[in-house]
Parts: sequence; structure tokens; C-alpha cells
Amino acid sequence: MNAEIIAIGSELLTPYRQDTNSLYLTEKLNQLGVEVIFKTIVGDSLAQLTQAASVALSRAGIVILMGGLGPTEDDLTRQAVASALGLEIRRDPALVTWLEQRFASRGWKMAANNLQQADVIAGATVLPNANGSAPGQWISGKYQGQEKIVILLPGPPHELKALFEEHCIERLRAKLPEQYIATRELKITGIGESQCDARVAPIYKLFSDIQTTILAGAGEIQLHLRCRAGSLDHAQKRVDELVEKLEDELGDLVFSDNGDSMEQIVGYYLQMRNATLAVAESCTGGLIGQRITSVSGSSRYFVGGAIVYSNGLKTELANVPAEFIEKHGAVSRQVAAAMAEGIRYRCDATLGLAVTGVAGPTGGTEDKPVGLVFHALASETGTEVVEKRYAGDRKRIRWFASQQAMDMVRRKLM
Amino acid sequence: MNAEIIAIGSELLTPYRQDTNSLYLTEKLNQLGVEVIFKTIVGDSLAQLTQAASVALSRAGIVILMGGLGPTEDDLTRQAVASALGLEIRRDPALVTWLEQRFASRGWKMAANNLQQADVIAGATVLPNANGSAPGQWISGKYQGQEKIVILLPGPPHELKALFEEHCIERLRAKLPEQYIATRELKITGIGESQCDARVAPIYKLFSDIQTTILAGAGEIQLHLRCRAGSLDHAQKRVDELVEKLEDELGDLVFSDNGDSMEQIVGYYLQMRNATLAVAESCTGGLIGQRITSVSGSSRYFVGGAIVYSNGLKTELANVPAEFIEKHGAVSRQVAAAMAEGIRYRCDATLGLAVTGVAGPTGGTEDKPVGLVFHALASETGTEVVEKRYAGDRKRIRWFASQQAMDMVRRKLM
Repeated sequence: MNAEIIAIGSELLTPYRQDTNSLYLTEKLNQLGVEVIFKTIVGDSLAQLTQAASVALSRAGIVILMGGLGPTEDDLTRQAVASALGLEIRRDPALVTWLEQRFASRGWKMAANNLQQADVIAGATVLPNANGSAPGQWISGKYQGQEKIVILLPGPPHELKALFEEHCIERLRAKLPEQYIATRELKITGIGESQCDARVAPIYKLFSDIQTTILAGAGEIQLHLRCRAGSLDHAQKRVDELVEKLEDELGDLVFSDNGDSMEQIVGYYLQMRNATLAVAESCTGGLIGQRITSVSGSSRYFVGGAIVYSNGLKTELANVPAEFIEKHGAVSRQVAAAMAEGIRYRCDATLGLAVTGVAGPTGGTEDKPVGLVFHALASETGTEVVEKRYAGDRKRIRWFASQQAMDMVRRKLM
Repeated sequence: MNAEIIAIGSELLTPYRQDTNSLYLTEKLNQLGVEVIFKTIVGDSLAQLTQAASVALSRAGIVILMGGLGPTEDDLTRQAVASALGLEIRRDPALVTWLEQRFASRGWKMAANNLQQADVIAGATVLPNANGSAPGQWISGKYQGQEKIVILLPGPPHELKALFEEHCIERLRAKLPEQYIATRELKITGIGESQCDARVAPIYKLFSDIQTTILAGAGEIQLHLRCRAGSLDHAQKRVDELVEKLEDELGDLVFSDNGDSMEQIVGYYLQMRNATLAVAESCTGGLIGQRITSVSGSSRYFVGGAIVYSNGLKTELANVPAEFIEKHGAVSRQVAAAMAEGIRYRCDATLGLAVTGVAGPTGGTEDKPVGLVFHALASETGTEVVEKRYAGDRKRIRWFASQQAMDMVRRKLM
């Protein structure tokens, strides 16, 4: 069965916003063996939304609509889908009670317009939303003689994802022919896209039953592998074979073979080695700490550290001798090393990680241009410094610096 | 006249890639007074592409197709559009010559399939592509009794942009009535979407000539205003009038009236007051520092601070008495206040900002549940603490906490 995804919201038709939920949904649908054949983006207009829903019903077996389930007058998805399907809408008393309780439990007053979130299309199953006041809806049945599945999901990504995982995946699986699909994602750092492709293309091209997509992101390359076969075992085995060959070729450039992020991988290694980490961040300004602590449970191996944006704080919080800064400049091999050693000592951590550089767009000099970054890792066996020159804008330079710094921790503990 | 944009390419229907050209085109079209009412993403299938083109022709006056003009078998846009319009395709001898010369001048051998790039839909104007071998096409005329403009553009962004600027904008302007458009974006924090809408809807509804879009993000609400009028002066004046009334209603809940981010606004105020800021972050783990320093030039007002993830570091780097932590717990009003005061002192900053809370999903207790966050701001006049309970996942809780903390700085300096 094929799917169409409809993203709803006038803001998605402006130059400022873009639907991203459909990427997540596409991944989940592909894992179920469903291909996405159309995506439509439509604004908060009842006529246009109804038209989009009708067109989608005419050309896809599964129609997923995202957004437009809120409490405002702009939230028209329920009405549009009901109208496209020729079904009535009813206010669900159980949902009214749930909404009232939800607001009361937070001590909020419920505005009258919130009640439209209790409106349900006739025959629809209500999909509870654990993270918001807009429940989803699931409709399956015949439409113009053909079996269709229509799913209404809330627009906010965290609501959509939780609701889809919990209430849609198993329901969809039950409606679909059994499919055997194995996927894997390798993540690679420390090599450029074309270099990487030149090394791996001769390998993955031998596996014509595996769809391989190579994708360059900031500071990492992803290889997405997907195999559909007569049994799950066989699909899995083929993917494993290809992964093994790719890892043989790329060695420790591969930092993840299951889609885990660099911050997750670093966390695993730190826990495995019973080690702790402290950071001293200058040009990254907290980005490394933020990434490391985005992983739940990171307090087991991350103690914290210092954001030493000013030179004074490099001395005050990371024990960098002021003479060092005066002599070598804040962006230097020596200061990076001193920051790493100082923060390791101050925080009593196994490893001290430090970054200092010129993130730009201003502040560059001929000697120390925008993009120049020193990364240092201090441990009981000594301190290692890596110097890099990154291209791109401030955001990209900071991201690359955080990635490189974390990769030094991975390599140290590997 | 309204437009539909169709992005073509099977890679745009994977979980890994996304159309971004449409953001650029939308901006250009809006400047001409054209609204984008639909966007469709379709793969390299002749049937599906023809269907998408037909649907678009039935519902939009301007149809812009991007991609699928290359030399491979997957490049089917010309055929699909010809078929949807019921027109023939002819090979253009002048284009054949141009292609042959283009290849010859580079010393390349032209493959036979490249000739399909010389195929032109009957009646179309060829739009030369200065940056690639795929020319665009412009078709205007009656389709099922209605005036339509159909534009075929190459997919690579630099080709598309150059070709659209050079060959499409003036052609479109000549076909459109003269238009004057003014836009503004208000950003609001500290109020929920439905509450906000209940307060502003009665106001913006009085301005029926202004299109108002309300958009809820994490920790902020955006109001996008857009007015089309007989003169630019009048459009601007109307938008200004509405902005004034909205700001009267919402007061200091509005933190930006020109689209600036919270971190930019906080930066402006700090500079204006000649003040400096230091942070002590526990559950946000560096997020506030990272956001503040994402603004170029932030070193003028941001000195840095500490990521005090462990209790030991709260004492070591932010001067929080260990007895405080033992007595009240790390997540408490008292510790938040002590962190803010301690980091202000340690960093010799005008303001000390601190956050401590339970970001989850683990670590919550009955007393101190996931989502409980204390935010503190210390200044020479004293220390203020705000307690909040945020709903949602770890990422959302941390983002809300960073937004609230920065908003305290804004309110302090306002």
C-alpha cells in the first residue's frame, strides 16, 4: 500500500517554515514496507484542505494528515476530512471530560474554543495524545469502493511522534501484508562526502538488493541501507554482510552502525570505561555540554564544566594562566591544552575536553582566520590537541567543532 | 493569482532529503503578490507526475515545476506537463545545436539521451539556463477555459535561482496586477497559544485586509502579519496600526516585533544597558550559553559561566554551599538562587542567571516531578526565582527552561 502525507498550516506555505514531520513519518512508513508517493502542503483553508484530502484519497491507500487539530478557528482538519469522506462530525463527551480534566489539573481555565478538539469524525477511533490537548483520529474503511486508511495527527513534532509510535504503528502493521525489511544506518566522521563515496560505492553496488543512500550532514556522513527480502532473517543477513564490508573499508571512521548520535556513542564509551568528562568551551559556548546532556542519564558520566567565553573566565574557571593567553592568544594550541587540563583538574574528571576558536563571521585575522579551531583532550596520560580550519557559517563551524571534540573522546576510549 | 509549486524527485520522498527550493520561490512569488496555495512533492513516475500536474492546473493559476529536466530516463517533467496540458512535444533544432556546442566547448562527448533536453512543449518559450544543460520552459495560455502560467525549472538550487531571477520575475510581473505588500512578525512568550489567540483574535479580525497567521513554537508564539494594499505606504500603515493594537493588548508578553529571536533580543538589551551576563546551568547543560553565543558579537555582553551538572560542581564553580544542596536538594528555589548569585560573583557579571530542574524522562520524584524547573536571576538589587512545571519530553523541557530564563533577563532590563 502507498501513502500520501499532507502537512497542514498556512505557515508551511510561507518562506519561513517547512514541514519536517514528514521525514519522520516516511522513515516509519518505509520500515512497514509502505512507500510515500506524494506529499502535499496546504494552508488553513477549508476549501483547499478538503480538496487536498479528496485528491489524496483518490490516489493513495494511506492518507496521513498532520496539523490543524488545535483549538483555533484555523484548525480545520477534522472538518475537511469529514467533508472529503462524506462523514459527520460528533462531539465526544468522553473527550470533553478529558479536556476539562486536563485543564483543571493544570489550574488553567479552558477557553470555549478548546471544545472543538473533542469533535470526532463518525466511525473514527480516537488516538489519545499524551503530550497535548489535540487527540489524533484513525479512520479505516471503504472510500469509493477502495480500502483506505486515514490518520489525523497533531502538528507539534513531539506530540506527533509519540502518538504515531504508540497508536499507529501496530494498527498499520495489522492492516498491511507481512513485509520483511531490514535497515541499518552507518555514521561516519573525519572524511568528506566524495572521498567516502569513492571508497564505498564499489562495495555497495555489489549489493543490488540493498538500497543505499549516502547523505552528507554537518560533521558526519550517513549511509542508509535498506533491504526487502523473502524473510526477515535473509534481509537482516544481507544488510549485515554489507555493513561488515563497509566497516572493513572505513575502519574507525565509522562511529555508529545503528544510527546512534555522536553524543550517545560518547556516553556509551564513558560509561563502559567508568570514566567522567568535563568540558571547557569557548567558541562553542555551551554546545558540547548541551549535546552531551541531551542524552538522558548523562549525569552518570558528565560532571559539567565551564563556558569560558571571556579571557578572564578561562583563568578563573579553567585555571588557564593569564600569561598563556597573553603570550599565545586565546585561540591557540597552548590555551586549548591548558583549558582541557585546567577543567579536568577543577572538575576532578577522568577527561577534560576543551575548544577554542574563531566562529565568525567577525573576529578573524590573517593569522587566526574565521573557522580556525583548537580542540584539546586531557587525560592522565597526557593532552592531545587537534587543529582544524572549518569552512562555512558560524553555526556550521560551531557544530563541526563540537563534533570533532566529541570524536576525540570516542577515539580515546575506543 | 495563486500558485502551486511541484517539487519533483524520488529522493524528496525519502526520510533523508527535503525540498528547499520552494522556500526561495515562495519568497519571490509573495513579493509579486502571488500566494502559494499548495506545494506537492512527487517522485520520478510519469503517471504520478502527470497526475500532480493535472491536479495543480485544476486549482492554481500559476504552476511551477522544479526538477526532472535532466538527461536521464528519470527526467519526465517535460512529458508529464505536455500530457497534462494535452500538448505535443517537439525537438527544438536550435536547442540541439546549443547542447552540441555546450558539450563540444567543454571537450565532452554528448550521450544520445542528452538530446531529450532539447524537447520543448508546443508553444513554450525556452528559458536559457546559464548554469546547466537543462533549459527551463514557460507556457502561458488557456487551459480548460482559464488563463494559466506553467513554468518548468531545473532542480539544482543555483540553476533554479539564476534562471528564475533572470527569466521569470519580469515575465510574471507583466502578467500580474500591480501589488503592494507589507509584512511583520511579532513574537510572544509567557502565554499559551489558545489564551493568546483568545486575546488577539478580536483585534486582528477587525483588520480584514491583513492576513494574520498565529504559530506556536517551543516557548514562543509568532504572529505573522501580511497586508496587500493599493500603495506600499498604505499597506505599511495598516500593518503598523495592527501591531500597535496587538502590543497594547499583550504588553510585555511581546518580546520582538521584527522577527528577532529571544537570544538576539536579550543581546540588544544587555548591550543597551551596558550589562554583562553569566550563566550557571544544571538541567539545561549549556543550552542557554549555546543560544546566547549563537549570536555573532555576543562576547560584548556574555562572559560565560558554568555547566554545573554534578552537585560537586555547583559548589566548586558556582559557590553554592554544600549544606544548601543537602538541605533543600539540587532542584530547589534556594539552590537556584545560590547558583545565580554565585555565578554572578565568580564571573563578576552584572547579571547571574541560573537554571536547575528535572529534565527527565528519569529522575523525577513525587515531590520533584519531571518538568519541575527553577530559574533564578541575580542582580545588584536582589535575586528573583521563577518556578515552572513544563510538560513534554527532555528536549522540550530544556528548551522551555532556556526560553523562560532568557525572558527573565529581558524583563529585568526592559
